[in-house]
Amino acid sequence: MANTKKRIKIADCLYADSERNSDQLYLTDFWAPDPFLSLKIGRRKIGVLSDLEYGRAQSESSFTEILSLTAVRRSTSEWLGKKRVCLADQIAWLVHVYAIDRLRLPGDFPARLVEDFRQRGLAYKIERGPFFPSRQIKSAAEVEKIREGNRCSAIGHREARRLLESSAIKGKKLYFENRPLTSERVRQAIEVACLKAGGISAMTIVAGGDQACDPHSRGTGPLRANQLIVVDIFPRMSAHGYFGDMTRTYLKGRASDAQRRLVDTVRSAQNLGLSQIRARINGRTIHRSITKFFTAEGYETSTVNGVPQGFMHGTGHSLGLDIHELPRISTVNSRLRAGHVVTVEPGLYYHGLGGCRIEDVVLVTKTGYRMLSEAPYEWELP
Amino acid sequence: MANTKKRIKIADCLYADSERNSDQLYLTDFWAPDPFLSLKIGRRKIGVLSDLEYGRAQSESSFTEILSLTAVRRSTSEWLGKKRVCLADQIAWLVHVYAIDRLRLPGDFPARLVEDFRQRGLAYKIERGPFFPSRQIKSAAEVEKIREGNRCSAIGHREARRLLESSAIKGKKLYFENRPLTSERVRQAIEVACLKAGGISAMTIVAGGDQACDPHSRGTGPLRANQLIVVDIFPRMSAHGYFGDMTRTYLKGRASDAQRRLVDTVRSAQNLGLSQIRARINGRTIHRSITKFFTAEGYETSTVNGVPQGFMHGTGHSLGLDIHELPRISTVNSRLRAGHVVTVEPGLYYHGLGGCRIEDVVLVTKTGYRMLSEAPYEWELP
Repeated sequence: MANTKKRIKIADCLYADSERNSDQLYLTDFWAPDPFLSLKIGRRKIGVLSDLEYGRAQSESSFTEILSLTAVRRSTSEWLGKKRVCLADQIAWLVHVYAIDRLRLPGDFPARLVEDFRQRGLAYKIERGPFFPSRQIKSAAEVEKIREGNRCSAIGHREARRLLESSAIKGKKLYFENRPLTSERVRQAIEVACLKAGGISAMTIVAGGDQACDPHSRGTGPLRANQLIVVDIFPRMSAHGYFGDMTRTYLKGRASDAQRRLVDTVRSAQNLGLSQIRARINGRTIHRSITKFFTAEGYETSTVNGVPQGFMHGTGHSLGLDIHELPRISTVNSRLRAGHVVTVEPGLYYHGLGGCRIEDVVLVTKTGYRMLSEAPYEWELP
Repeated sequence: MANTKKRIKIADCLYADSERNSDQLYLTDFWAPDPFLSLKIGRRKIGVLSDLEYGRAQSESSFTEILSLTAVRRSTSEWLGKKRVCLADQIAWLVHVYAIDRLRLPGDFPARLVEDFRQRGLAYKIERGPFFPSRQIKSAAEVEKIREGNRCSAIGHREARRLLESSAIKGKKLYFENRPLTSERVRQAIEVACLKAGGISAMTIVAGGDQACDPHSRGTGPLRANQLIVVDIFPRMSAHGYFGDMTRTYLKGRASDAQRRLVDTVRSAQNLGLSQIRARINGRTIHRSITKFFTAEGYETSTVNGVPQGFMHGTGHSLGLDIHELPRISTVNSRLRAGHVVTVEPGLYYHGLGGCRIEDVVLVTKTGYRMLSEAPYEWELP
């Protein structure tokens, strides 16, 4: 007997802008500031675009079919026999004309649309894991784009070092071109350098002394001599949207023994992390080994007066079209695979002593890793 | 008899990062790159933050209570008597301890969480309209921040004009500092100028000739003499996240009669739009009057060989923490109110002739409007 079992026709469905939603950018290669609808049925990629974006989508996107929103609206209206139709109506019409059995939706799909689907009896399934698992395994072209991002980041670091090296120390303050050197000035110089190298570096961190003890603090005010300064630069390349992400910790002047030991320990921890990177290792194993190493070296992680200190973040995260992607290298059970691109960025933070974080980006390979970031580790700047 | 009716306790609930989700930024005043949970119960604002963000949230956010994610996880685990708890479990615990009767969720709330709420029998309601309607009515402080955004945009325009004015015309091409002047060079100069003025100008549009006929085309390659060049600059201020948004159309060299008439008509249309701005007018009325005006002037909007031309976008949109907010000034029925901040940006686009758009930002008042953007309208640059 012939197999008469009907094959279920599933359509991936996205409704989001592509500047903020990277699944949408990944699927369509099309930058648009307002939400638009995409359907993926097998190899077909169908986009519904407003008149404003229609022409551009034809030349810039990877859609295989582009429908005009105006036309879809009209057809839906005729199909339903009502004048005003909403987005869910339009999707219902598309489900009808493409004979879709079920919509596959990402976990962050807008809840109000799912409510509408339920009311209309549209079949759907919400994906609990990553919507496009292929995003985690970077192609050679994607690896190259992330490398470009890190080149941009390295250019930012060169600029930061230049300002620190060219600064004069007067009392405890730093002066660059006769004005106090502030986090803001260094950040602006970094961001201008990144922009000229093709990347937008937002939220750049230049945090001196205790400010760095909040690892996401951007840093503000005058920078001082003999204090640790965490500089974390993660530009997004305007041409394609992939990120770079590199951190170095600098000190202008002369480091104390405690500062030196802190930086050396973090650098050793990074090397300990890097030495374990290869396909099939569990990220948790790496993270635990670093946690253990810090403790063995006398650097405790704890909460002091309600404030966490020590090593209070993960060892690393993947990156690509988003700055933070899965998998992470953290307390979570998660195995690395060849093609993952991850940061390795241990850090230690103690009020009074300051913070130190050193971060690079690597491509995970079968037997180890390939470095995708490159900048000097020299940190004590006279 | 005393009124014994129990008052329903509703909590607004957000789960999003605040760099991309402006409701989250509006509620918390806290910039964070990863999703976090916020609850608003009356005037109480409760945040659940990871160890990484906990300290910074205490000093930078407007939360009235900050809970440690680690502690919430532990409590939820004890409450449910299971080791592993997910986000929905944690929210269920918070609903329990704060005695919340119903969660109010934004329309773009992640669908997977709503599915979890349903499974757990948590009561919720998905908001169909704007989650915080107060975001539409800008406070004096917000108006000032948008004005700052437009000042930044104006600085970008000054830079664009400087490059065009300083360029030499050789043949049909423009040369600046002895190299061909391209969209990319002008864009970079604009973005660097904006950065120095405190704003991040992403996706800046510098589109010459037919490229501008896709109104969101960023523009690429050499700019030419005697062609219309649409320059649209919409920086987001790094200090607070509010946008500016201004467009001017320039021409280097000498305009043709057709170009001059196009620009004059768009400018007249903008004035026609501005003259109608005041509280209580319907945006659709303004938009229709401009559409009619264009038609009367002989500028048809239609689709030629599948490509829309003429005036194929709305007259304006609100802006604030997002570049595109509601209400819009378009075909949609939507009344303006005092405190709305909207763009007025008619445009005309014809292949062969090129595109023209002129955009300013105004605060809607009871009797008219207050201009929040300021840059010369001079466009023909010798």
